[in-house]
Amino acid sequence: MSSNPLSSGVSRRALLSALAILSVLPETLLPAGAQTAAGDPLPSWNEGVAKQSIVNFVAAVTREGSPDFVPVPQRVATFDNDGTLWCEHPMYVQLAFALDRVKGMAPLHPEWKDKQPFKAVLDGDMKTLAESGERGLGELMMVTHAGMTNNEFEKIVSDWLATARHPRFKRPYTELVYQPMLELLAYLRASGFKIFIVSGGGIEFMRPWTERIYGVPPEQVVGSSIKTRFEMRDGRPELFRLPEINFIDDKAGKPVGINEFIGRRPIAAFGNSDGDLEMLQWTTMSGGVRLGLIVHHTDGEREYTYDRNTEFGKLDKALDAAAVNKWTVVSMKDDWKRIFAFQ
Amino acid sequence: MSSNPLSSGVSRRALLSALAILSVLPETLLPAGAQTAAGDPLPSWNEGVAKQSIVNFVAAVTREGSPDFVPVPQRVATFDNDGTLWCEHPMYVQLAFALDRVKGMAPLHPEWKDKQPFKAVLDGDMKTLAESGERGLGELMMVTHAGMTNNEFEKIVSDWLATARHPRFKRPYTELVYQPMLELLAYLRASGFKIFIVSGGGIEFMRPWTERIYGVPPEQVVGSSIKTRFEMRDGRPELFRLPEINFIDDKAGKPVGINEFIGRRPIAAFGNSDGDLEMLQWTTMSGGVRLGLIVHHTDGEREYTYDRNTEFGKLDKALDAAAVNKWTVVSMKDDWKRIFAFQ
Repeated sequence: MSSNPLSSGVSRRALLSALAILSVLPETLLPAGAQTAAGDPLPSWNEGVAKQSIVNFVAAVTREGSPDFVPVPQRVATFDNDGTLWCEHPMYVQLAFALDRVKGMAPLHPEWKDKQPFKAVLDGDMKTLAESGERGLGELMMVTHAGMTNNEFEKIVSDWLATARHPRFKRPYTELVYQPMLELLAYLRASGFKIFIVSGGGIEFMRPWTERIYGVPPEQVVGSSIKTRFEMRDGRPELFRLPEINFIDDKAGKPVGINEFIGRRPIAAFGNSDGDLEMLQWTTMSGGVRLGLIVHHTDGEREYTYDRNTEFGKLDKALDAAAVNKWTVVSMKDDWKRIFAFQ
Repeated sequence: MSSNPLSSGVSRRALLSALAILSVLPETLLPAGAQTAAGDPLPSWNEGVAKQSIVNFVAAVTREGSPDFVPVPQRVATFDNDGTLWCEHPMYVQLAFALDRVKGMAPLHPEWKDKQPFKAVLDGDMKTLAESGERGLGELMMVTHAGMTNNEFEKIVSDWLATARHPRFKRPYTELVYQPMLELLAYLRASGFKIFIVSGGGIEFMRPWTERIYGVPPEQVVGSSIKTRFEMRDGRPELFRLPEINFIDDKAGKPVGINEFIGRRPIAAFGNSDGDLEMLQWTTMSGGVRLGLIVHHTDGEREYTYDRNTEFGKLDKALDAAAVNKWTVVSMKDDWKRIFAFQ
């Protein structure tokens, strides 16, 4: 996660929760090109530089005999999750989960009524919550993410996702995945790639649903984690989640996590923020034909607009690096015919 | 690694290096049964309870419509490495690597001539080395495993493995893999299993060769690790290996590592020592048909004999637990027609 996930997200949330109108671009108005072309693997992508760079890359590394050919086992692609595969505004989904969970746990913790940052959550006072900073948010995450077995946590996450709704789109968060990126995952998979998610989000927050939503099995999910402890309790083996950070899979942690979990250097990486800069460097600056791609949030009507001037999900250094390193920058507004499947 | 890998290994080494005679059981004397049966997936296994338990398990979980059927994505099997897939005597291969590397680095470290535990290594004084305990061995591991990039380390390991020879068998360590276990890996893979190595050994010591030797790709190797740091140096992204423990994948650490790296609970686990006890518990004590298997080193002629009365590679609690939990105990002497492919 970025260092201060709430700072601008909170004010934006207040703003956005007032928005009720969804701007849906009718399919009939979409340019026909790729959409109707038989066998187009990326039908939700407009023709253009971004789409072409993807298709060219895949063609280059999969064409046997080509000097750029990469054998199947080395076709590793890594995807950030928040803001790259699904919507991260007005706040990280995992933070929305934590806030809801505080509310759910509150009856067992009467002391929270007078104790920050819990009081702020219960009062819906996002400004005070944001002011509690990393320490306050850290406490919130630990209380809501630790203190149970890993099986219990998996059920808590699954149950929450089944009922929680995005404040603007009024849909389950798992429907707020980017349709063009789902097509990209399928296209790469069909081209012999093994897809890994490499996210700053919690690894056990993602694993309960990534296979169903993205087709990415648990063993191909890399993320941040807290420590766990193995224990035999009443003759049963259990893993208990402890309130202690194990690994932060963000920024310079992403290449570290990739190396530790995957043990191969990716040949393609996909992100949307400065948190992905080092993963993109690690992937693309290794000689050979490589693909670095940044999803640029340029569509305030269909989704959100943000880049340099936000703390949360900031895309600044990585945008400069994209120009220098010839990474593909995808404008959600211009390059995507649709953003969500329901639009 | 076990807590005191040298303590009994050293004296044994002295003993074993004197042994020159390999006792090879002529193939013609082997019982014919499975060996000649067409399509036997485990030709190096003698017929018996151990082999039958494996075949029965695979049949149960792969038979569609059976109450014990397990869908392919959940067919996860985890294998310890040292002593389960390859020979760990007279010392862990990784320790032999560290000792050789100290010798190779010594010209650049004249101070080692008077400094323990390095002096002991250079003098070939295994007794003093063993007495340096965990701290001395830890220092040895850090000096030999950290201080370079991950790419450099991979090359160091590969180069060493290409020339190093086992003191008794006079062969590359990568030939000292158990032929019956290679057949078991292939059999499980052909039955829809995804194989993971879950070893106390160093993850980056194993990854350079596990794909070639076992068919297990780097992303399916879980092991102990030191920390790494990402850094741009001279405009190039690098991962530097730091002299600091990151994770010890042994004993109660194995279920933790399995959960963190794989995110699924295995349905079959294979080990040979008390270091595998918790992995076997975690795997088998979860309801449903499960396979826990222990390789018991009972063959001093063709390999080594050790279990309860050794510090190094000790099999004691896990052997008791095997009886209680109905894990399969494989006697290398009785259950395996051959141990190494070259025998």
